Amino acid sequence: MQDKLKIGIVGLGERGYSLLSYVILEMDDIEVVAVCDKYEDRQKRAAESIEKSRGNTPICTDNYKEVIALNEVDAIIITASWADHIHIAIESMKAGKYTTIEVGGAYSIEECWSLVRAYEETKVPCMMLENCCYGRTELMVLNMVRQGLFGEVVHCEGGYHHDLRKEIAFGKENRHYRLVNYLNRNCENYPTHELGPIAKILDINRGNRMLSLTSTASKSAGLHQYIIDQKGSDYELASIHFEQGDAVTTVIKCAKGQTITLSLGTTLPRAYSRGFTIHGTKAMYMEDNNSLFIDGKHNDFENEWKQQWNNAEQYYEKYDHPLWKDYSKDIKEGHGGIDWLVFRAFFESVKNGAQTPIDVYDTVSWMCITALSEQSISLGSMPVAIPDFTNGKWINREKTAEGKYRLDRI
Amino acid sequence: MQDKLKIGIVGLGERGYSLLSYVILEMDDIEVVAVCDKYEDRQKRAAESIEKSRGNTPICTDNYKEVIALNEVDAIIITASWADHIHIAIESMKAGKYTTIEVGGAYSIEECWSLVRAYEETKVPCMMLENCCYGRTELMVLNMVRQGLFGEVVHCEGGYHHDLRKEIAFGKENRHYRLVNYLNRNCENYPTHELGPIAKILDINRGNRMLSLTSTASKSAGLHQYIIDQKGSDYELASIHFEQGDAVTTVIKCAKGQTITLSLGTTLPRAYSRGFTIHGTKAMYMEDNNSLFIDGKHNDFENEWKQQWNNAEQYYEKYDHPLWKDYSKDIKEGHGGIDWLVFRAFFESVKNGAQTPIDVYDTVSWMCITALSEQSISLGSMPVAIPDFTNGKWINREKTAEGKYRLDRI
Repeated sequence: MQDKLKIGIVGLGERGYSLLSYVILEMDDIEVVAVCDKYEDRQKRAAESIEKSRGNTPICTDNYKEVIALNEVDAIIITASWADHIHIAIESMKAGKYTTIEVGGAYSIEECWSLVRAYEETKVPCMMLENCCYGRTELMVLNMVRQGLFGEVVHCEGGYHHDLRKEIAFGKENRHYRLVNYLNRNCENYPTHELGPIAKILDINRGNRMLSLTSTASKSAGLHQYIIDQKGSDYELASIHFEQGDAVTTVIKCAKGQTITLSLGTTLPRAYSRGFTIHGTKAMYMEDNNSLFIDGKHNDFENEWKQQWNNAEQYYEKYDHPLWKDYSKDIKEGHGGIDWLVFRAFFESVKNGAQTPIDVYDTVSWMCITALSEQSISLGSMPVAIPDFTNGKWINREKTAEGKYRLDRI
Repeated sequence: MQDKLKIGIVGLGERGYSLLSYVILEMDDIEVVAVCDKYEDRQKRAAESIEKSRGNTPICTDNYKEVIALNEVDAIIITASWADHIHIAIESMKAGKYTTIEVGGAYSIEECWSLVRAYEETKVPCMMLENCCYGRTELMVLNMVRQGLFGEVVHCEGGYHHDLRKEIAFGKENRHYRLVNYLNRNCENYPTHELGPIAKILDINRGNRMLSLTSTASKSAGLHQYIIDQKGSDYELASIHFEQGDAVTTVIKCAKGQTITLSLGTTLPRAYSRGFTIHGTKAMYMEDNNSLFIDGKHNDFENEWKQQWNNAEQYYEKYDHPLWKDYSKDIKEGHGGIDWLVFRAFFESVKNGAQTPIDVYDTVSWMCITALSEQSISLGSMPVAIPDFTNGKWINREKTAEGKYRLDRI
């Protein structure tokens, strides 16, 4: 096992810079030796942060190939724009570097297959940085499900419910790629925050798989209204049409009979939620009021449901996932610990030369939902098939080992 | 206008009897002159209740045609099993009686058209008793939407989330029709409690209509588990397969670009909810934590969403629907007033010889979702078209008059 790792980071926008500053530079065993971004000011900001915090001066470049080519680099972190994740990852894997990509959706099914082929040819792991798999509540529910407390899980829901109107509408000002996506595409463009934890609960790619989906988009009205309200009707985007519908609902059917509903809501006013909801034959969890309903225990509350709201925290002590218990004391920064945990999971895999807990099959089966939802919407909500990226291996792939809760296993 | 009405009731199971006893018999201007049920014990129970409460002895019969044939009867209440609603309603309308049917879904599109034809031939109104259209919160949100406080409404959700495992699994004991439906069908079998209020908000059949839907069902596991837990594996239903999936998700697209998600959840443990959720460009309401999010007002709470939970009641004083304000003091019994209000709405329409606030087009366009969801599920979630039961009249049909809030107008 390696004690220390040297890494390169590709993509230093708000997200990449924030992960660098608040998460990675807090980890003594990780040395950032190279940073890459197409904009020089971002390279400079990152280099200054590294120098100030850790004393070393990283290589700065606008060409990610230079970072990948560095012999000393053990792993590559790709926090570039959505459209750049997969092709950079493939080059990184082909150079033998452990690779991790930030969340985002795929633009085509072919790019998903190309990532699978890169893995199968090189055997170099590729992990999506799906931090929400490490949310305390998501982990607790996963733990309860694995202990049988939910009975048989039959239906799950999740969403990316985040008012991003400001970030999207004025994205040009901060060079963000969301704006062009919302102007040109209509799809479930950000499925993985909710789907990742659900896929783990449903053993997707390990005894189960997603078979098909339908996707339906509402009209687009939220961004237009927001721009008019904020900037008036003379603003350059005030009369432009956004292709992206305000509400996109995707319904997925699994091989073992479960259903998953995903919803995207980023362009209307609302409070943040990932709408995490798990229904089993013995219990239910609902994020939107943070409640656990356990059959035989909460049925009496039926006439006064509010008594049950926000009761989930009462269960942390007994049912926190062992991973959370073991590692939470070490957490420093980042979205309540989830950024810290997902990076530790990746780095421990690299150090151990082990498979990553979110592997290439997980990564592509979550990302592909974006491309498939775009197809379904364009075809009037026709069901479309979800590829089996494992080519049949899902049937016999080992489930996560019970009782073995290293950070690289969820 | 008639001062008093004479009515007949067809169907005296738990629901019919309860409406009779706790709602209708509390109304001094309504006289129940005839009751019908196929079971004699139910006729007797109803007659005794009427005699005790009001002194008159009703005609008792097991043949609904005898009730419809009575000259003195002004209106027929049909609280029979789902499969009997439409054909009895048609006979009642053809006999010139104002007709109202309890909620439920249609078994075919043809039976929906037959109800429309009966109305168009006779001009006798037929109203679905959709009490949830009269829920205080639903009415308040409708009122706020009509005042423009939600901006443009783009997406709505609702569900029938009610743990009915006991009622379904042991339905044979109380002669309930749900059991045979769950054994034989797989569909959104109860869409109207959530769809009714949403349809009013979206002006369905009055400037808007529902165009198409997809429907997806999970496997069926809840009832089997429940029966095993309650009665053991020797019980007669313990080894039978229920066709009805535990979770059915239906996504509807409207002519004016809005989407509606409906979910059925009646066979898994959970708290009751109708999941009423309205997203607009200026505000959002969510029943599952009873919260209103108003743009520009609640955005600061984003980091502590819980502060906003259960805030809807703060808005009652200012935004209660005028109908609720005017009539709530008179409410006596029934599901927090909604049964009382829906019956008053019907009876006032009869007395005034007016159209009912929920008309035949509303009734069939809500009921048809059941038959169409069954089609979509059987076709692997294929989108299916929703008929235009108005044959184009929806484009120009008058919206509910603003400022005129008699009980027969919502």
